[in-house]
Amino acid sequence: MARVSQAHLDARRQQIIDGARRCFARNGFHATSMQDVFQETELSSGAVYRYFRSKDELIKAVAAEAFTYMRESFRDAAREAPARPFEDVVSGVLTHALTEQARRAGTDIGTFAGLILQVWGETLRDERLAMALDDGYEDMRLVWNALVHAYQRAGRLRTDVPTEHVVRTLMSLAQGFIVQQALFGGIGEDVLRDGLRALATTVPEETPDT
Amino acid sequence: MARVSQAHLDARRQQIIDGARRCFARNGFHATSMQDVFQETELSSGAVYRYFRSKDELIKAVAAEAFTYMRESFRDAAREAPARPFEDVVSGVLTHALTEQARRAGTDIGTFAGLILQVWGETLRDERLAMALDDGYEDMRLVWNALVHAYQRAGRLRTDVPTEHVVRTLMSLAQGFIVQQALFGGIGEDVLRDGLRALATTVPEETPDT
Repeated sequence: MARVSQAHLDARRQQIIDGARRCFARNGFHATSMQDVFQETELSSGAVYRYFRSKDELIKAVAAEAFTYMRESFRDAAREAPARPFEDVVSGVLTHALTEQARRAGTDIGTFAGLILQVWGETLRDERLAMALDDGYEDMRLVWNALVHAYQRAGRLRTDVPTEHVVRTLMSLAQGFIVQQALFGGIGEDVLRDGLRALATTVPEETPDT
Repeated sequence: MARVSQAHLDARRQQIIDGARRCFARNGFHATSMQDVFQETELSSGAVYRYFRSKDELIKAVAAEAFTYMRESFRDAAREAPARPFEDVVSGVLTHALTEQARRAGTDIGTFAGLILQVWGETLRDERLAMALDDGYEDMRLVWNALVHAYQRAGRLRTDVPTEHVVRTLMSLAQGFIVQQALFGGIGEDVLRDGLRALATTVPEETPDT
């Protein structure tokens, strides 16, 4: 067998993941077969199986890439935060990450959001997939945590509330944003930004001093 | 055929919906058959089919009840709002509605949240189901709208942001709350309340005067 470079192996692996992502986005996880992936990537079954032994492994690889992309987007955002308003950073990073993932999958945001919804549904039925995604979710917690901490350090978010609670509220917002995109579509960056801005200026019950 | 009262018909219909909800919560939509519903309700196939011609109709009826329950919870909440802090009302109504729905289904919050996740996944594949739920989602928009307006009228939420954007942000939060319950569990009423409270006091970029 001819020796192949690591760069070649990596490129081939990426080619398969990209093809699988397009198949999943087009037809959903259930309707996608390994045959579809062979066709989409124009690779032989042997070539694909050398990298991924099953559809499950492909799902995990696609999800892992999505998590990595989200993590990097947050890291970039946290770097310039808190110079920018919190609501701009949150709405911007979510919209950008979803848009870019959809573009890579050759589909629109709504369809890609639907694919994520499918993954969630799958993890409820499939213990092994759920476990495989645990690290990814843990990463998400950590990046949200870093972002919240950056704003707390700058004195722009309360510190007398458990950070974990703020993080889970923001994760709810992010996951609900995906649900809204999948079910109804048309929730732009401005929607979340405006909504968060309005919530950020809730006036407490007591008459404020200002 | 003996004449039966409307009350009897309503009670029978409710009995079937309650049984179906328990089946769905226990086994999911896909694995539930009409046979399961006959067994759970201890009714004959003829008795069940007189009210619901298919599993699809049962799914719609269970979903419609959930929407009605949510709508009433919000109406009650809007009545006492804005005497209570916004974050208390939002976290309270969401937690209470989900808890009560789970109780009726004879299951825990996480499992019931998973069932809702399944419905969302189904609507992406099933145009007719999606259309059947449209009215329910429209109702949700209206009740959130009423709540936001109540706080705006009381001068406790900004009015210079499109209400629709605030509503969709809150719907994202609500739907993401369900996703978190389904995937990770353990997101109590205090989590959302604290999280919203922290976000409600984001300090703007400019040094505040206070």
